[in-house]
Amino acid sequence: MELKSYLKERCTIVDNALERYLPAEDELPSSIHRSMRYSVFAGGKRVRPILMLAACEAVGGTIEDAMPAACAMEMIHTYSLIHDDLPAMDDDDFRRGRPTNHKVFGDAIAILAGDALLTEAFILMSSPEYSARVGTERLLPVIREIGYCAGSRGMVGGQVVDMESEGNKEIDLATVQYIHTHKTGALMKASVKAGAILGGADKKALEAMTKYGEAVGLAFQIADDILDIEGTTEQIGKDAGSDEARGKATYPAIMGLADSKRRAQELVDIALTAVEPFGAKAEPLREIARYIVSRKS
Amino acid sequence: MELKSYLKERCTIVDNALERYLPAEDELPSSIHRSMRYSVFAGGKRVRPILMLAACEAVGGTIEDAMPAACAMEMIHTYSLIHDDLPAMDDDDFRRGRPTNHKVFGDAIAILAGDALLTEAFILMSSPEYSARVGTERLLPVIREIGYCAGSRGMVGGQVVDMESEGNKEIDLATVQYIHTHKTGALMKASVKAGAILGGADKKALEAMTKYGEAVGLAFQIADDILDIEGTTEQIGKDAGSDEARGKATYPAIMGLADSKRRAQELVDIALTAVEPFGAKAEPLREIARYIVSRKS
Repeated sequence: MELKSYLKERCTIVDNALERYLPAEDELPSSIHRSMRYSVFAGGKRVRPILMLAACEAVGGTIEDAMPAACAMEMIHTYSLIHDDLPAMDDDDFRRGRPTNHKVFGDAIAILAGDALLTEAFILMSSPEYSARVGTERLLPVIREIGYCAGSRGMVGGQVVDMESEGNKEIDLATVQYIHTHKTGALMKASVKAGAILGGADKKALEAMTKYGEAVGLAFQIADDILDIEGTTEQIGKDAGSDEARGKATYPAIMGLADSKRRAQELVDIALTAVEPFGAKAEPLREIARYIVSRKS
Repeated sequence: MELKSYLKERCTIVDNALERYLPAEDELPSSIHRSMRYSVFAGGKRVRPILMLAACEAVGGTIEDAMPAACAMEMIHTYSLIHDDLPAMDDDDFRRGRPTNHKVFGDAIAILAGDALLTEAFILMSSPEYSARVGTERLLPVIREIGYCAGSRGMVGGQVVDMESEGNKEIDLATVQYIHTHKTGALMKASVKAGAILGGADKKALEAMTKYGEAVGLAFQIADDILDIEGTTEQIGKDAGSDEARGKATYPAIMGLADSKRRAQELVDIALTAVEPFGAKAEPLREIARYIVSRKS
């Protein structure tokens, strides 16, 4: 398979679905809906939804089985970026080369747009049409899993520890690993698990997918840390070297660049081994795992 | 029935359930869990959960059928207060006589605690134990209803229009009504509807409960507007007259105090008529409706 065209095609499919699912810009109050859409359609690579669709297909489901949950996941990811960029948090003016949400709509609307996107994710997943399609016995565990991985014991928890660690020179590897597996890893793992559940995975398949999701989630963040050092500002769409400038807890800062690269590759190997039993249907998952550590942006 | 002791007893039951459902203070990262609990246990009257439990009982359910959703509703209400109080929004230092969340934990943790409480609400509602108790065919519509009423077409939408109207002297009654029915009314209506669905209401009963919930939700907010003028700072736990000082869009500002009182009483009468068919089982709902316009805090 040709990964680049696969990702591009999947990105378009997800974008079209998001376009259908999100409230229209002219639906009142329009300022909040414009703000929500501004950040959802700000050039995201849709890594999480694409992973969810691929996991669903790998266990025998269709992309339609996973699409609403995949779009819900992207809404949650987007809300977290909007809130992270706020002056009270990371105070970022640009993301992917565009002004951040609060720079365009103001802090208050940015906070509310984040809140509304998080809420919209759960509205979307609990629709009667969706439960009629996949069955409530699959849907409720997916809502639960995604909620858990997004909440205070998942992504939000990772963000808290990340913030509290900033500028602290004494951070150990366990703390960096906590931040990475929670702040980024949790949603990636939840994406893969949700896709597998929605596709009808049995217990063994779900365990294999969970292993894949955990490995890929952590590898993704380590690769991000490495890109922050090795990538150019143009490639990564934010200031290169900004992690170090902020005293952020990263893998390279703790274990060095060479060992970080080695660790990322090990994780990819773990991911590849985990999805071996799924054969050809898991080819996209394999390609994505390899891509995650080799990408340049 | 003696409403005061009824409300007090129900408040304790809800508090105990929230205590069980919320992550413990010492669960990591503890700062976020302390912050979440600080605002949840800040002396709220638990109006929404109590309404949900009462609606559930009125149609023949038990309070256990509604308890997780009732606590989820209180978490959503609490998240909205934390975010509303932020400097970027209403910038309030005190609520119910205590420092607001961001004054104690800082803006970043306050934003994240709100996010985590909103997320926790959906985690709680999608638990396997809960769906085993009430059945997924009741649970999913409840998650959907609560999500919809909390989102950009419900509470968040009301907050947006409220903010955008502040200081505008030309606000008309339709706009004030939009703000009230969305910002406060939506969650009150959702509480009553969710309780009715969880208690097994048929279509006709659900329609009656929806009417009750809408009327009580709007009456509650009009009464709040009136209290802001007639109550003392001590009674209402915030500066009396603060709505006028801020140029907030209120019923009394548009239609005068006497007409606002008349309108609130009319809405209570509509609510009482709606729940007539439920007989003695709806007595608490009737008492709560009367209390809402006669309360002094």
